[in-house]
Amino acid sequence: MSDIKHRVIFQPHNKMIEVADGENLIRAAMEAGVHINASCGGEGVCGKCRVILEQGEIEGGTEKLSDEDREKGYCLACLSKVKSDLVVRIPVESNVDASVLNIATSPRHTAKIKEFRLESIREQGLLIPPVVKRYLELPPPTAQDNLADVTRLLNFLKIRHDEHRLVVELDVMRQIPDLLREGDFKVTATIIRAVREDGKNHITRIEPGDTTNRNFAVAMDIGTTTIYGEVLDLNSGEVLSSYGDFNGQISYGEDVISRIIFAEKDGGLETLQKKVIQTINHVLEKIIKKASIKKYEVATITLAGNSTMTQLLLGITPRYIRRAPYVPASTLYPPFKASEIGIDLGSQTIALLYPGVSSYVGGDIVAGVMGSGLYQSDKLTLFMDIGTNAEIVIGNRDWLACTACSAGPAFEGGGITFGMRASKGAIEDFSIDPVTFEPMIMTKGNVRPKGICGSGLINIVALLFENNVINNRGKFNQELNTERIRKQDGIWEYVLVWKENSQIDRDITISEPDIDNLIRAKGAMYSGAMTLLEEVGMHINDIEQIILAGGFGSYVDLAKAMTIGLLPEIDPQKVIYLGNGSLLGAKMSSFTNLFRRNVGDVLKMMTNFELAETPSYMDHYVSALFLPHTEMNYFPKLKERMEARRSTVCKATKRDEIL
Amino acid sequence: MSDIKHRVIFQPHNKMIEVADGENLIRAAMEAGVHINASCGGEGVCGKCRVILEQGEIEGGTEKLSDEDREKGYCLACLSKVKSDLVVRIPVESNVDASVLNIATSPRHTAKIKEFRLESIREQGLLIPPVVKRYLELPPPTAQDNLADVTRLLNFLKIRHDEHRLVVELDVMRQIPDLLREGDFKVTATIIRAVREDGKNHITRIEPGDTTNRNFAVAMDIGTTTIYGEVLDLNSGEVLSSYGDFNGQISYGEDVISRIIFAEKDGGLETLQKKVIQTINHVLEKIIKKASIKKYEVATITLAGNSTMTQLLLGITPRYIRRAPYVPASTLYPPFKASEIGIDLGSQTIALLYPGVSSYVGGDIVAGVMGSGLYQSDKLTLFMDIGTNAEIVIGNRDWLACTACSAGPAFEGGGITFGMRASKGAIEDFSIDPVTFEPMIMTKGNVRPKGICGSGLINIVALLFENNVINNRGKFNQELNTERIRKQDGIWEYVLVWKENSQIDRDITISEPDIDNLIRAKGAMYSGAMTLLEEVGMHINDIEQIILAGGFGSYVDLAKAMTIGLLPEIDPQKVIYLGNGSLLGAKMSSFTNLFRRNVGDVLKMMTNFELAETPSYMDHYVSALFLPHTEMNYFPKLKERMEARRSTVCKATKRDEIL
Repeated sequence: MSDIKHRVIFQPHNKMIEVADGENLIRAAMEAGVHINASCGGEGVCGKCRVILEQGEIEGGTEKLSDEDREKGYCLACLSKVKSDLVVRIPVESNVDASVLNIATSPRHTAKIKEFRLESIREQGLLIPPVVKRYLELPPPTAQDNLADVTRLLNFLKIRHDEHRLVVELDVMRQIPDLLREGDFKVTATIIRAVREDGKNHITRIEPGDTTNRNFAVAMDIGTTTIYGEVLDLNSGEVLSSYGDFNGQISYGEDVISRIIFAEKDGGLETLQKKVIQTINHVLEKIIKKASIKKYEVATITLAGNSTMTQLLLGITPRYIRRAPYVPASTLYPPFKASEIGIDLGSQTIALLYPGVSSYVGGDIVAGVMGSGLYQSDKLTLFMDIGTNAEIVIGNRDWLACTACSAGPAFEGGGITFGMRASKGAIEDFSIDPVTFEPMIMTKGNVRPKGICGSGLINIVALLFENNVINNRGKFNQELNTERIRKQDGIWEYVLVWKENSQIDRDITISEPDIDNLIRAKGAMYSGAMTLLEEVGMHINDIEQIILAGGFGSYVDLAKAMTIGLLPEIDPQKVIYLGNGSLLGAKMSSFTNLFRRNVGDVLKMMTNFELAETPSYMDHYVSALFLPHTEMNYFPKLKERMEARRSTVCKATKRDEIL
Repeated sequence: MSDIKHRVIFQPHNKMIEVADGENLIRAAMEAGVHINASCGGEGVCGKCRVILEQGEIEGGTEKLSDEDREKGYCLACLSKVKSDLVVRIPVESNVDASVLNIATSPRHTAKIKEFRLESIREQGLLIPPVVKRYLELPPPTAQDNLADVTRLLNFLKIRHDEHRLVVELDVMRQIPDLLREGDFKVTATIIRAVREDGKNHITRIEPGDTTNRNFAVAMDIGTTTIYGEVLDLNSGEVLSSYGDFNGQISYGEDVISRIIFAEKDGGLETLQKKVIQTINHVLEKIIKKASIKKYEVATITLAGNSTMTQLLLGITPRYIRRAPYVPASTLYPPFKASEIGIDLGSQTIALLYPGVSSYVGGDIVAGVMGSGLYQSDKLTLFMDIGTNAEIVIGNRDWLACTACSAGPAFEGGGITFGMRASKGAIEDFSIDPVTFEPMIMTKGNVRPKGICGSGLINIVALLFENNVINNRGKFNQELNTERIRKQDGIWEYVLVWKENSQIDRDITISEPDIDNLIRAKGAMYSGAMTLLEEVGMHINDIEQIILAGGFGSYVDLAKAMTIGLLPEIDPQKVIYLGNGSLLGAKMSSFTNLFRRNVGDVLKMMTNFELAETPSYMDHYVSALFLPHTEMNYFPKLKERMEARRSTVCKATKRDEIL
């Protein structure tokens, strides 16, 4: 989308929102918190999202309408693209009080995205490049000056570039005599700097001529599900290419526990190591090709993953990770040659692995803590990486406490009847008409719905709750006058999409057991944070900032996440979305050794708590098995909103009854 | 031989020598400087070495004599073993003046052998062990203490053993989780210490239980001709086993230059690397078996070799070593895993390579300088490694100058008509009757002669010269009355062994071209030393100590080496024989990091001179192409001896003429 912005005013709500040129009109409504009945996810088949264009210009939206409707100014919101400032009228039943319209949904708040900027690191004086390239014009040897080739090289790196404590590995040494002469004694040396100033600096490559303008690294996130890689230009700070693919281990188990079980089988560890390396090499092939560089030009590859992924990558048995007392093999890993474990880069490309804290707070989380700058923050921060294994870090620049909890797979669509990953056809956004209880459904890719993804689930449950369709224990209000709430095979459910509008030839519903799974997942996380805070003598209301990491956080409507009690109630402006924190940390470590210098201290700061060993956890957990929580006072704004809504809807309903 | 000593008095010379019980009588005579005609090398076939036993007891010696001779008290010296104090009479022609007998040869002086004693290093406080084994009884992890395995290990190495700056490599990390549990958390860690205190210490092995009593290393000399290895017990300082074998590269050329030429051919470098590794592995197999240890118990292997051998071992092209301006690839090599180049030890065994100075002063010489303690000596020392490529180091603890000269292969038997290596049947000792010019020949293994080895050649030429059989330009005195001096195919020669007493069915001779080759070889070395001294503003008479290294030095009669002008004239007590200096240095570095700490400074101290670039070298060389030198004043004792001899022989000869 372009940078051009347009203002869209929705009537009769009288709500205005600014959107980018070309934005889908129904998404604009969703952003503005304006409800439009819409069941087909944006594919234009249900025909329910008819709106009247009163002013301005749209693109599309009328293809599927009759000439009569078109003449009246109707268009289908889900097929319309905003091309100018607009005034759009939503046809509402005349008997609905406008006051109800304004409580439909609060405007969406997704988190601010933390961006990486090399310049800002440089400006802050934090740039300690881990890789430097040095061009040298050496005097060729003579009878009077016949120093060894390596000695000549090192001497001049010292004299001309003030480089010290240099080590030349055998592989490089083998190439030096011919390379020096091939390059007429004009060469470029690649130096990988020690993390600390008293360490050794390794010369990992010598090239003929001046190649200082070509200095690259790879950052990679080794996720249980997905592996993401980026090629970085170390000179400019740019990401030259990126690519993600499913971790090839996935066919041996979806989560870390099933992987560990497989690794314990005969040959299992070797198989899993081979699979992850295959995926890594596939990702590398893609990003290296796309970036138009050569494998051997990659000086370092920085990898971050959870403890199980890290141990499997290195071929270290993860057996003791899943057995009490849950001991990882190591938390720190020495730099090693990427080729040593079969990573297909240069023979001298150095692999750096993010250190972890414990069996369940691994390198991915430490990378996120580093990448987010949490460890340097003044503010008491809650860091959450939401997933099946959810990790929580609380603290600031003075102290850090961390833990992991098993939230279950609900956030990734697991254990939910129509749950699915956030791919095409997944319901990701939702609103509900507070009177008719008709839904507004948005899917990924604007196609007919197939199922519900994690963020969709949160939005659905939050709005069902705010509209009193379900109560604080997640049970349906069985007295509401809508055919969408029904009991099927003894289970109460709400029909999100009728069969004919779905892709799957079945009604798509959300049931009480689905909601229960979500409540338990969010309860595990929230109570984890509560417990951690209590352990350090603080309270959840002290939280000044939230950082969300993981693929999940990008599309979560923060207000909704607070409504269901997944996140503590806080000004949404104070929530930062990190994106892939693991990749971000890996990337930042590729650009500056400052991170690797600091990470040792951060590890020492990060006190790990095992929730299973913390007696108060179970109490906190039980209290959190409500929407949003047994203690509504932790959610004062929600409480106020719900009270206001109740009285408004009540009044509106009463007027209906009077009429 | 036992420790029992006997005194042997030779008559009519009236010379006494103390020898070990069981010593061969002819060797005793040689040591005493008493000439006995003997041609067959000690096999008892020529029958010339008949002596009369006047007092005492011998074993053997009479097997090949007639009963008549036996009754008269005769025995063959070469077959007799000394079993008590003896008086032995040599039957001499009655017309020889006894005074002549006393000038036959000076007593033999071989150099004192430098011995390695771990205790003395320890007593001097110089023991900084490069490898330590630490036994730990770790508390097993619990829910309250579930530190990572590696963290637990490192913490307790710190607490219990004050070990810091530890690094665990991936290979070892892979084994730790299972090993710790297998050993019930009682384990022994092998730590390879950094050379300097601020370096990293590497944990290279973890074993269940207490294995601190098993701590081994290998020291190895990678010679152009031979590879020697020793298994060392790092706890006791003992050499557990040793073995030497010909370098498998030998079939691709005898000397470094021909190896370099081969290495430049297609696939040549790979072949030579493979061959030397094969030999190394063969030697390792032998010594490891003999020492009853396991491959993986070898913590380090320290290797020393010349620059070409070192580069071939590492697979680094030696191309530029043989081309002006003679530039080696490197002089320092980082520690690496022995397995990286195919050395068949543990996967974590660390290989350490001795650094060198230049293309022709390599790690073998630096090892010798370190092993001999030259770099710590107060005395101005001349260090010589005699061979085809002879290396010379001069200096003391304040400064060191070094050079190499191409002496040619004469010292190793090359370019000498009947030259051979010092193996069985090689003439290694010689004396000559000053009147009859009959020889006394001793061979390696006391068998009939096959040829002449390096030390034999020196002895022969020295005595021919002292007895005026040859002049100071190595030309025969054609007027001497003996059939042993003859002109054959236009070349003058001396017959050492008649055909019937040789193993090769030919007369064994030494010819003028042979002598010329030796003179050029010794001239190259002596003038190298002269030049080096002159460059640093000193003179050869300032030399206070000589250290001889290389296989060659063990049996050289120092007086003879001075007579021919190979060594400067010095008290033989001040000559130390190092044996295999390369192996000695490697061994000492295996026991104490002190050597590795010092070697960097020693390298900086060692100023390298290229003789080809030093104009005065050619003048010195030309002056040294005489026996012993154009300047007899550099050899005052020899001068005095020769003048005395000349007058004695002259008188004796005159008396003959009168009679």
